[in-house]
Amino acid sequence: MVREAVAAGDAARLDELLGALSPDAITHAVSRLSSDERDRLFELIDAEWAAYVVDLLPEDEALGVLESLDAGDAAQILQEFTTDEQADYLSEIENAEEILEAFDPEDARELRALVTYDEDSAGGLMGTEFLSFADTLTAAEVVAGIQEEVEENDFDVQYVFVVDAAEKLVGVVPLRDLLLSRRKRPITAVMQPSPHSLRAEATLDEVREFFDEHDLFGAPVVDAGGRLVGVVRRAAARDALAERSDADNLRRQGIVGGEELRSMPMLLRSRRRLAWLSLNILLNIAAASVIAAHQGTLEAVIALAVFLPIISDMSGCSGNQAVAVSMRELSLNVARPDDFFRVLGKEISVGLLNGLALGVLLGAVAWLWKGNPWLGAVVGGALMANTLIAVAIGGTIPLVLKKLKLDPALASGPILTTVTDMCGFLILLSAASATLDHLV
Amino acid sequence: MVREAVAAGDAARLDELLGALSPDAITHAVSRLSSDERDRLFELIDAEWAAYVVDLLPEDEALGVLESLDAGDAAQILQEFTTDEQADYLSEIENAEEILEAFDPEDARELRALVTYDEDSAGGLMGTEFLSFADTLTAAEVVAGIQEEVEENDFDVQYVFVVDAAEKLVGVVPLRDLLLSRRKRPITAVMQPSPHSLRAEATLDEVREFFDEHDLFGAPVVDAGGRLVGVVRRAAARDALAERSDADNLRRQGIVGGEELRSMPMLLRSRRRLAWLSLNILLNIAAASVIAAHQGTLEAVIALAVFLPIISDMSGCSGNQAVAVSMRELSLNVARPDDFFRVLGKEISVGLLNGLALGVLLGAVAWLWKGNPWLGAVVGGALMANTLIAVAIGGTIPLVLKKLKLDPALASGPILTTVTDMCGFLILLSAASATLDHLV
Repeated sequence: MVREAVAAGDAARLDELLGALSPDAITHAVSRLSSDERDRLFELIDAEWAAYVVDLLPEDEALGVLESLDAGDAAQILQEFTTDEQADYLSEIENAEEILEAFDPEDARELRALVTYDEDSAGGLMGTEFLSFADTLTAAEVVAGIQEEVEENDFDVQYVFVVDAAEKLVGVVPLRDLLLSRRKRPITAVMQPSPHSLRAEATLDEVREFFDEHDLFGAPVVDAGGRLVGVVRRAAARDALAERSDADNLRRQGIVGGEELRSMPMLLRSRRRLAWLSLNILLNIAAASVIAAHQGTLEAVIALAVFLPIISDMSGCSGNQAVAVSMRELSLNVARPDDFFRVLGKEISVGLLNGLALGVLLGAVAWLWKGNPWLGAVVGGALMANTLIAVAIGGTIPLVLKKLKLDPALASGPILTTVTDMCGFLILLSAASATLDHLV
Repeated sequence: MVREAVAAGDAARLDELLGALSPDAITHAVSRLSSDERDRLFELIDAEWAAYVVDLLPEDEALGVLESLDAGDAAQILQEFTTDEQADYLSEIENAEEILEAFDPEDARELRALVTYDEDSAGGLMGTEFLSFADTLTAAEVVAGIQEEVEENDFDVQYVFVVDAAEKLVGVVPLRDLLLSRRKRPITAVMQPSPHSLRAEATLDEVREFFDEHDLFGAPVVDAGGRLVGVVRRAAARDALAERSDADNLRRQGIVGGEELRSMPMLLRSRRRLAWLSLNILLNIAAASVIAAHQGTLEAVIALAVFLPIISDMSGCSGNQAVAVSMRELSLNVARPDDFFRVLGKEISVGLLNGLALGVLLGAVAWLWKGNPWLGAVVGGALMANTLIAVAIGGTIPLVLKKLKLDPALASGPILTTVTDMCGFLILLSAASATLDHLV
């Protein structure tokens, strides 16, 4: 329906559709448009609707839209966003400087300053929509100040900040306290003094901790001199965290260099996936070289070839379970890199138990299949031993990577599967070599 | 240090430590304690500190603490939480009824009502901390009402609700508007009429959408008659969503039946992991039976055994990348189950490209290793074909599972790897059978 309205150039119909469709339906409909249709859509709707739609699109698509528009139109759409969102988009838009020139010079100056902060720091997340008042005012004067600001900017105020003559943050006033205060009291008597704040360089994790600890809508950000320079909205922190965990999820499956959407060019999508696949195939070839080195044994007992992929896959699964538990314990703070030996001990006990269960099962299958108890013992024993190795490595490798300041989400899987494949193949084929007389 | 203070029974030292340590450090230290030490810790600290610590622990540990305490002590700790959190804990505590008896009877009645709602519905997430006022009052009367409530309960008010004589929700008043309003105006002239609200049966996804659309701290919940029955705090919705995505992550690695922490009993941890591993080994044996059926071919060309695990692993990786992209597109609403053919088409194009690249690489390795171009063609061709199959299945299976109302996060992986293993083994070994004369 959106496509038809765009094709017909029916702006009224589009406004009606955007009002009637759910946000999810709009995302879906717009992401289905060709880039020409999309550009046409944004020509037809006003800046307010355009901002609404841009906000619903995945970030890469939103950036594509803003870049393909006239700088003036893009600036108009951006003005519907909060300053932290404006800075976020501008930091990734190629023609950002051109768009900034269509902004009010004062706003542009502020935005240029915001863009200089690291994207995932408090400075990069903060916006400049906050109300601060001098510590010399009374409650009534602050209320009047809010009134003025609200009339001008339709601010969604939750609390106001109090600064001293040097612009240093000295207090925060929840609206509730202002509402219940006598009007003539000095604001310094109403405010909560020495409020918690973040420094502009605070990392995303520090911002997350701040909001975990303080149930506030916004975190005040101060510079090295203690001067109030911005406020991180809770929603901005949440979005940044969701984006990071999203990127982690994709990278864990080996999709690197940014998010993938199927609307992106095929070559880009292929390349982002292939980077990791090419490395993985080399790791696989390295692991399989263990099999190549034991061709003689394999030739004598061809049945072993059936069990090689099983041992590889099962060890990978067991190990990945241990990785998942460690990743979760790290994120919940119940495990730390120096818990290496504790985690190792815990994994060994589970690995013995699960290795026994799985080894007996697979060993029985092998025995029944070929009627040879030795084959069962070799296959079952190899799976048992390799399950133990897999959970021991899987449980501890995220801790080690974290200690080495590497990303455990990214590197744990490939290291685990390469090592467990090699060990599994080696154990099975060596055990078979050693007992070859009984197997043939 | 916490352990030493507990052992020494030094309550003052504990208070000091809890005040000095970061929340993360407290989580880590307390989760390291034995259950005896933990119980002792909670005997030593007051209810306020106890609630602070309980809140920092992973949910299963927190429940363990509350269950092991006297019902009276547990009730005292719970009273430090908001009602939605109280209901959340009580719905999972075994001796909940006993604890409820230590509550004020009126509060206990309210909590019993909250506990009856489905945990992940708006009713299950809501609390009863909200301020509502009759639509007959003036702004000044509402302010006086807030004043009274704040003095009694130290409420963190952000807005108040307006209800009619039948308790039906008719409006919401942001504190800002109350602050800026003339005192004598009727509250109905200050309020925003017909506010958005959730029904008590609304699902967690509907709650998420509500907060995505409305930048509010709390969502009013109404019953079938439109009566205001509770408020879902944004933080409660966020926690429930985080918990769900956490559980999804673990289940994706085959850890079922609840979260795993290494502090849990070994047998429980083993069982939760083994459930999926046992199923997986059967799927693996089924896939490997394809190899067993082609032992003759394998015996003739033993080199093929080296490539079986490589094809299995690489197809799994390629397919899982496509799964990850589909899961993400589903969650971003840019893909839907009826986009099956579009996704299939997009995956086939990437699959052809990546299959070609990987197939040529592996084929070249096989050729160079054995000096036999036919072996290279068979191995490379099999990987190429199976990469195509893997991405086609991987991209579409989450859509199909979603259509069938099954959980794509859980079932996509196992179905994918089993099918791609079977196809990969079959393609490689059939192609080898067909060209056997050239391979030996």
